[in-house]
Amino acid sequence: MRAGASTAEIDRLVQELQSWGLSPEKIVGSHKVVLGLVGETAALDMTRLEKLSSEIEQVLRVERPFKRASREYRHGQPSAIRVATPNGTVSFGQDLPLVVIAGPCSVESEAMIVETAARVKASGAQFLRGGAYKPRTSPYSFQGHGESALALLAAARQASGLGIITEVMDTPDIEKVAEVADILQVGARNMQNFSLLKQIGKQPKPVLLKRGMAATIDDWLMAAEYILAAGNPNVILCERGIRTFDREYTRNTLDLSAIPVLKKLTHLPVVVDPSHGTGWSEYVPAMALAAIAAGVDGLMIEVHPNPQKALSDGPQSLTPEQFTDLMGEIRSLALHRGR
Amino acid sequence: MRAGASTAEIDRLVQELQSWGLSPEKIVGSHKVVLGLVGETAALDMTRLEKLSSEIEQVLRVERPFKRASREYRHGQPSAIRVATPNGTVSFGQDLPLVVIAGPCSVESEAMIVETAARVKASGAQFLRGGAYKPRTSPYSFQGHGESALALLAAARQASGLGIITEVMDTPDIEKVAEVADILQVGARNMQNFSLLKQIGKQPKPVLLKRGMAATIDDWLMAAEYILAAGNPNVILCERGIRTFDREYTRNTLDLSAIPVLKKLTHLPVVVDPSHGTGWSEYVPAMALAAIAAGVDGLMIEVHPNPQKALSDGPQSLTPEQFTDLMGEIRSLALHRGR
Amino acid sequence: MRAGASTAEIDRLVQELQSWGLSPEKIVGSHKVVLGLVGETAALDMTRLEKLSSEIEQVLRVERPFKRASREYRHGQPSAIRVATPNGTVSFGQDLPLVVIAGPCSVESEAMIVETAARVKASGAQFLRGGAYKPRTSPYSFQGHGESALALLAAARQASGLGIITEVMDTPDIEKVAEVADILQVGARNMQNFSLLKQIGKQPKPVLLKRGMAATIDDWLMAAEYILAAGNPNVILCERGIRTFDREYTRNTLDLSAIPVLKKLTHLPVVVDPSHGTGWSEYVPAMALAAIAAGVDGLMIEVHPNPQKALSDGPQSLTPEQFTDLMGEIRSLALHRGR
Amino acid sequence: MRAGASTAEIDRLVQELQSWGLSPEKIVGSHKVVLGLVGETAALDMTRLEKLSSEIEQVLRVERPFKRASREYRHGQPSAIRVATPNGTVSFGQDLPLVVIAGPCSVESEAMIVETAARVKASGAQFLRGGAYKPRTSPYSFQGHGESALALLAAARQASGLGIITEVMDTPDIEKVAEVADILQVGARNMQNFSLLKQIGKQPKPVLLKRGMAATIDDWLMAAEYILAAGNPNVILCERGIRTFDREYTRNTLDLSAIPVLKKLTHLPVVVDPSHGTGWSEYVPAMALAAIAAGVDGLMIEVHPNPQKALSDGPQSLTPEQFTDLMGEIRSLALHRGR
Repeated sequence: MRAGASTAEIDRLVQELQSWGLSPEKIVGSHKVVLGLVGETAALDMTRLEKLSSEIEQVLRVERPFKRASREYRHGQPSAIRVATPNGTVSFGQDLPLVVIAGPCSVESEAMIVETAARVKASGAQFLRGGAYKPRTSPYSFQGHGESALALLAAARQASGLGIITEVMDTPDIEKVAEVADILQVGARNMQNFSLLKQIGKQPKPVLLKRGMAATIDDWLMAAEYILAAGNPNVILCERGIRTFDREYTRNTLDLSAIPVLKKLTHLPVVVDPSHGTGWSEYVPAMALAAIAAGVDGLMIEVHPNPQKALSDGPQSLTPEQFTDLMGEIRSLALHRGR
Repeated sequence: MRAGASTAEIDRLVQELQSWGLSPEKIVGSHKVVLGLVGETAALDMTRLEKLSSEIEQVLRVERPFKRASREYRHGQPSAIRVATPNGTVSFGQDLPLVVIAGPCSVESEAMIVETAARVKASGAQFLRGGAYKPRTSPYSFQGHGESALALLAAARQASGLGIITEVMDTPDIEKVAEVADILQVGARNMQNFSLLKQIGKQPKPVLLKRGMAATIDDWLMAAEYILAAGNPNVILCERGIRTFDREYTRNTLDLSAIPVLKKLTHLPVVVDPSHGTGWSEYVPAMALAAIAAGVDGLMIEVHPNPQKALSDGPQSLTPEQFTDLMGEIRSLALHRGR
Repeated sequence: MRAGASTAEIDRLVQELQSWGLSPEKIVGSHKVVLGLVGETAALDMTRLEKLSSEIEQVLRVERPFKRASREYRHGQPSAIRVATPNGTVSFGQDLPLVVIAGPCSVESEAMIVETAARVKASGAQFLRGGAYKPRTSPYSFQGHGESALALLAAARQASGLGIITEVMDTPDIEKVAEVADILQVGARNMQNFSLLKQIGKQPKPVLLKRGMAATIDDWLMAAEYILAAGNPNVILCERGIRTFDREYTRNTLDLSAIPVLKKLTHLPVVVDPSHGTGWSEYVPAMALAAIAAGVDGLMIEVHPNPQKALSDGPQSLTPEQFTDLMGEIRSLALHRGR
Repeated sequence: MRAGASTAEIDRLVQELQSWGLSPEKIVGSHKVVLGLVGETAALDMTRLEKLSSEIEQVLRVERPFKRASREYRHGQPSAIRVATPNGTVSFGQDLPLVVIAGPCSVESEAMIVETAARVKASGAQFLRGGAYKPRTSPYSFQGHGESALALLAAARQASGLGIITEVMDTPDIEKVAEVADILQVGARNMQNFSLLKQIGKQPKPVLLKRGMAATIDDWLMAAEYILAAGNPNVILCERGIRTFDREYTRNTLDLSAIPVLKKLTHLPVVVDPSHGTGWSEYVPAMALAAIAAGVDGLMIEVHPNPQKALSDGPQSLTPEQFTDLMGEIRSLALHRGR
């Protein structure tokens, strides 16, 4: 719609389009309102659409396979995903301050998670990560404490005021995870678990969607599209390394070029996880800083009070002291980059 | 146990081991009985174990990350997975006759699935494949007819006598799929959906486990191990192509060397899907025959009465006529290879 | 040209096209003659070309990036590459008898190479392979005996009557290698050494072009095109495995689907090297047989009199005894497949 | 050797080791001298070595496959590669100022290369890149002007005072390229052209070694080792993207984690080429800045006066104006990072 289009005219147009059998989505930006149409639109006459109202500035067809996730769908305007936390609302998005998520791979005990929350909060993190349900390659590895760990996350949330992000692995668990978590995580191995994507798209909490190990950018955005199409517009994309031929010195290959590529293709915020991306704590600082320079909107970093004794992913976890040092560098670089 | 060990002595030994807190699994082979032990066995004294009975031939420790799936777990003896179908029991396994599974990507209508079943049966297939729940990259693509398609598969099963194999995508669907299917399929995108693997391992129907697009052989066998560890020993592995840098002429890269590698590492049967493996029907015959020469135990081939009009995966589907021709070649080569 | 077009008319047409500044290539098939045109042909008027002679059956434009290598360039007719050996001419090509190349990774001594030649010849091989110049990842590994090994290959050639195939690594070596070898090999690591391709295309001996580790089918055919464009039409393609994310149990991933894909795209013969393709001798038989079933024109197999003591690539070499057994299976399957 | 070991004692030790048949290399650092031994050292008695002189501080065995390239070989001290240019010496190395190489993919004409040199110099580049010999996938693409382009590079060098870096593709060309170039480039496709590596290691000019498309970090360092072992210690490593399954939006996947990994493994300087790494000029700035944040020692960036009309790689070239803007950001970030 043109800048300054009246609410009344927009509402009239929405009703008109609904009478055609369409479900227009109203996207309210800072200057303009965009109406998004997805569905059986291939046969729509663009000229006829344009003539529906003099307040229509332009009718554009999104040619990419992902529609709601495409930058064009919001006429170039990035999304800001607002997340309510006990300490106040934190927003993820382009040009907004960098958001830092930190914490252990898995929740091991109340003392451990509460202590870690306090430490990472003191260093400047806004979110606590911690796995209750853990996807592990082996059935004989520690699988996470499950439901009981959710209560420990709730305790850490209350004690620290940090927002909580934790993974959901199965549709029947969505509800109970959503009671505790401020952001629900879909892991790399479940990125194309379409049943999970559909169900998680039907609840309102923001979703952090990790890139699958062999997912192309298109696959990933189509996975986001499943969530968006189910009604939840609050998707944050998280690059965590892809699988390549070289796995000798890093667990995965962190694809930082995904950041500028996604900034071009989609309005959704982008987070990088350098801990899974490299698999080794010694490479995390360089990759965290590189991600900031490349324009990332947030970082997810594994921190464990005692990495040598971690029940999972110890080698890629920073100690709280290392995290504090890194946060100093992160703050300085983010400031320099205007974030 | 030694060949000829008495049942009484074996039972005594099982009870003895249970009294140690272990859960021995009795594997009855044609010549011998093997007792498998998984769990907290790292601290077990091998010599003390050997002295438990004079009927023990040898105590071996499985060093691989997968235990129950390893060839050593059955002392080198391959598994035969027996599947009950209306036309009688069909077995998958090394040195057994080659099994052929055929049918469309998705169940489109009753007429279509019943006709396809009749056609592929007439050409020599023992199982009908057909998707009720379809994992699709796009939320806007045909997602399968879901539960209603299960009834159509049941009708085709009754009409043709073929066994049915169809995919389960989510834990809440397992039960209703298992009511119709003779083999439950776990798709490539769900290969590391560990919640699904655990639940499917708790029901008794055989499971066909497709290899994930970026799954190593170890990842894949560990996924099988989840099902085995949950109590279901009837797992069939299905190679369907991996994702590589070259996707110009084939959709995936079919990894036929997985066949001899798996025959060395595991006792589980191996099936190849050349339709997904190549993505183009014209390459299916060459790859189907190559898989037989490499020692595969079964083939899964997409057949559609009218590939041009298929709702999904048309380009990789054979027509019934092409399938009949291919079955002639398959039979001839299988006979030549002693299968 | 039409079947039965007169030589005089064809020659007239060649001269006419030369007068336009083109360099037509005459390809004499069993039924027809094809005239190939490469160069500044984008602006040529197809209709005007067709009117040049009533003996022209059809004018086709090759749309693929590779021209001379394309199947269309020979109007669908496969090439037969004829190689003169002391034991007579051996031809590689579609529908021709399968050709077997065997021998050690590197030439270690005269006794060793002469003995191996005798053994593989007795088992039915037509060519002896053996490296004089060896591309090795480490500068501290055995680099081949170089020029002196060429003399040993000549001795083995004379003693056995087998054709010789050996690798050229650098342009200054082409001439001396071509004095001994019946087929010059370009290795995987040099597949895009364009200087070498151009020079090797200027000499007349047939060339076996291995696929690079990360070469797409298009890259590979364009590398062949370099040789063809330089004037040498006798190129044999050799698939030897590509590099993928899974390198735990096989050194490379042998891409057997390349066989039917190449049969569609190019007229050039295709050979498979299951020794490098898998890296382990125990997997060589299954992959050799699979390649035959997939329609390969030849096999290249590493055989060493004492693999444990080989100076390079021992783990992937068969013993002469294993090779003899495999040749029995190969002959039987080739016969069954009409090769 | 201990800090302060006398030259006389070091020379005595070198002679002693030479009398054992070894070829010790003297590495003079700021505080200490290190003697490197490569060759048949497996059987050397470490204790006996330590007793050779009281000035020996420690005898260490390098366990990695690369020896001279390893960080341990220089006891943790990074190399500074000093390159003489008309404008003075420029050094590449850890903690030294960031070096920028810029220029077109290929040298097209004298006016074009001289103008580009002037423009990139004015923006702050220290080296001019430009291809005389171009490795192209197709034999029908522009192959570079070859020897005549070398004269144009010499003219641009004289006019601008910039150092010149250009690619050598074949051993017979090394000498004439080295007459003009200040740094010789080995391209990605020739990274394992071992004949070229050996010959280029015998001449004294510094070498920029690009990573092969499917080269692991180990493969790459072993390629550097070939040059070092041949006598040339001046090797600069250049990451330019690896080949992965996702090639839709970027030509390659730029592996920035290679920077911290190489900083751990080797003493050699590391440069990143974001132009080839992404393939699109719009992604070059983000990746250039990310490389700096990750700790890179230099950048190589394609700049063309008119990218739309470039004879090769236009889409990935910046205009001189875009390069000037980027250099502003590069300088600012490098300053912030202490480079």
